[in-house]
Amino acid sequence: MAKVNIKPIGDRVLVQHIEEKEQVRGGIIIPDSAKEKPQEAKVIALGTGKKDENGKVTPFEVKVGDKVLISKYGGTEVKIDDQKFTLVREDDILGVIA
Amino acid sequence: MAKVNIKPIGDRVLVQHIEEKEQVRGGIIIPDSAKEKPQEAKVIALGTGKKDENGKVTPFEVKVGDKVLISKYGGTEVKIDDQKFTLVREDDILGVIA
Amino acid sequence: MAKVNIKPIGDRVLVQHIEEKEQVRGGIIIPDSAKEKPQEAKVIALGTGKKDENGKVTPFEVKVGDKVLISKYGGTEVKIDDQKFTLVREDDILGVIA
Amino acid sequence: MAKVNIKPIGDRVLVQHIEEKEQVRGGIIIPDSAKEKPQEAKVIALGTGKKDENGKVTPFEVKVGDKVLISKYGGTEVKIDDQKFTLVREDDILGVIA
Amino acid sequence: MAKVNIKPIGDRVLVQHIEEKEQVRGGIIIPDSAKEKPQEAKVIALGTGKKDENGKVTPFEVKVGDKVLISKYGGTEVKIDDQKFTLVREDDILGVIA
Amino acid sequence: MAKVNIKPIGDRVLVQHIEEKEQVRGGIIIPDSAKEKPQEAKVIALGTGKKDENGKVTPFEVKVGDKVLISKYGGTEVKIDDQKFTLVREDDILGVIA
Amino acid sequence: MAKVNIKPIGDRVLVQHIEEKEQVRGGIIIPDSAKEKPQEAKVIALGTGKKDENGKVTPFEVKVGDKVLISKYGGTEVKIDDQKFTLVREDDILGVIA
Repeated sequence: MAKVNIKPIGDRVLVQHIEEKEQVRGGIIIPDSAKEKPQEAKVIALGTGKKDENGKVTPFEVKVGDKVLISKYGGTEVKIDDQKFTLVREDDILGVIA
Repeated sequence: MAKVNIKPIGDRVLVQHIEEKEQVRGGIIIPDSAKEKPQEAKVIALGTGKKDENGKVTPFEVKVGDKVLISKYGGTEVKIDDQKFTLVREDDILGVIA
Repeated sequence: MAKVNIKPIGDRVLVQHIEEKEQVRGGIIIPDSAKEKPQEAKVIALGTGKKDENGKVTPFEVKVGDKVLISKYGGTEVKIDDQKFTLVREDDILGVIA
Repeated sequence: MAKVNIKPIGDRVLVQHIEEKEQVRGGIIIPDSAKEKPQEAKVIALGTGKKDENGKVTPFEVKVGDKVLISKYGGTEVKIDDQKFTLVREDDILGVIA
Repeated sequence: MAKVNIKPIGDRVLVQHIEEKEQVRGGIIIPDSAKEKPQEAKVIALGTGKKDENGKVTPFEVKVGDKVLISKYGGTEVKIDDQKFTLVREDDILGVIA
Repeated sequence: MAKVNIKPIGDRVLVQHIEEKEQVRGGIIIPDSAKEKPQEAKVIALGTGKKDENGKVTPFEVKVGDKVLISKYGGTEVKIDDQKFTLVREDDILGVIA
Repeated sequence: MAKVNIKPIGDRVLVQHIEEKEQVRGGIIIPDSAKEKPQEAKVIALGTGKKDENGKVTPFEVKVGDKVLISKYGGTEVKIDDQKFTLVREDDILGVIA
């Protein structure tokens, strides 16, 4: 798993996409820009926590190392040392892959 | 019923579309992309539960195995082992078919 | 009244449109697609009920069999056994016809 | 005043437009579709009442028979026995004409 | 000041625009449609009052006769006896001209 | 500092833009319409105050005379005696220049 | 670190972009306008603090000097002494780089 020195703020979670192998259709390799953004990702770091109205921090429903499904359009991509990561709010995590 | 190792997060529910037979109009088979997205689905897995303001989990109104009607545009499609599933919020489930 | 095995979820209500006779203007029958979506409907089934913040279910202001006026663009159409129904939230019911 | 058997739901009010005489400009009668939607209306029926968080019904600020000004784009038009009515939320009533 | 028999509903206020003299640029009178909508107005009537959650009416910050600045795009224009008025929510009143 | 007889309503603040000198690029003076709207402004007058739910007025974080940075697209421009002012909500004031 | 005399208002934070070296692709220098807006930034100044409903100020999760990741489209750019800064709400800070 990637080692990244980023601490997400609030209810955010840092995830790393699990790249599918380059898709091939009819022998022609589809270049990167034409591929659909991947949906599987690994949780790399949890945020500082979402606070409720009384200032109490709500625990995360995922943990570091979880393989998760994230919304195609959720989050913000960040690039660190040529690796792509995404900072998503926990609500953009759709499910955990067992 | 499909066996899928996904645990939806929060108030989400994993459903699997019940594909209608390929529609035929005037003898010409309409290819997949031209068909309307199906609305009937089977509940495959329930989420970790929606928490109210006091942290109490609200019970789901559907259960695994229910045949449900879902909003045409609700949810996010996921593809696992070449099967299409949809992760919907419970509020996108319109009704249960008895 | 139609008999349908659907239980709406939450504050939703299942209604069936009351089709107006095919309108005729100047002797030319206007085909289905050009007609305005009907607004009168009959209540077929009530939902499981909308819960307030304390978990108490709010009673519906309509009952099965009521002839109601629904918003032209509200709700989601569903087709069961070739009959068109609409699942609307109670708030999309504008009034009851006495 | 029109007699209509409709009971509006919630904070809705049924009003009937007060049609202005067909406007004439330069001797040419402007057909219906080109006229601006009327703004004056008469209150025909009050809704079942808007409930606050404690279930208490808020009284309406208008009463049946009031001549009111309604927002040009508010509400939903309904046609009953060839008469046009509009179901508006009370908040779309701008003022009462004394 | 204009005398108008309209009682605004809720937090609305009836104002009358203070027309600027027809602007003249280079000797050519600019017709009405090309002029910018006026921003200065006089308060003609206050609403029935905005109620807070406990049903208590909040006092208005303007009074009848005040010369005010209103948002260019706020409110709804009404025409009474060939005079233009605007019904604005109090929040669309930007300031009072002393 | 400009002397203007306007009392802003609620949480609004009246500010006056601090015009930058006409920018010159390559010796060509760029006319007014092509310049970016200025962001620096001086606070001219504070509003009547924003009330919280209990009717208590929240104090402003800026004071008359402060040089502030305002959002490019926030507020409403008003013209008084050929001078341009802007009425902004306090939340559109980004910072105070010391 | 830059020295700027700006005090952000409320939950805003003043950050300064950390410019990446001019990117070169195939030997051709890409001019400024074609470059993607940077995402790394340094915290220069904290706001006066976000107040909760009881008037209590919520502490910031970042501190002056922190190297942070900010949303590509968040905040408002300001230019002071030919240096570009951005005033962002704390919620637009995605994470802290350790």
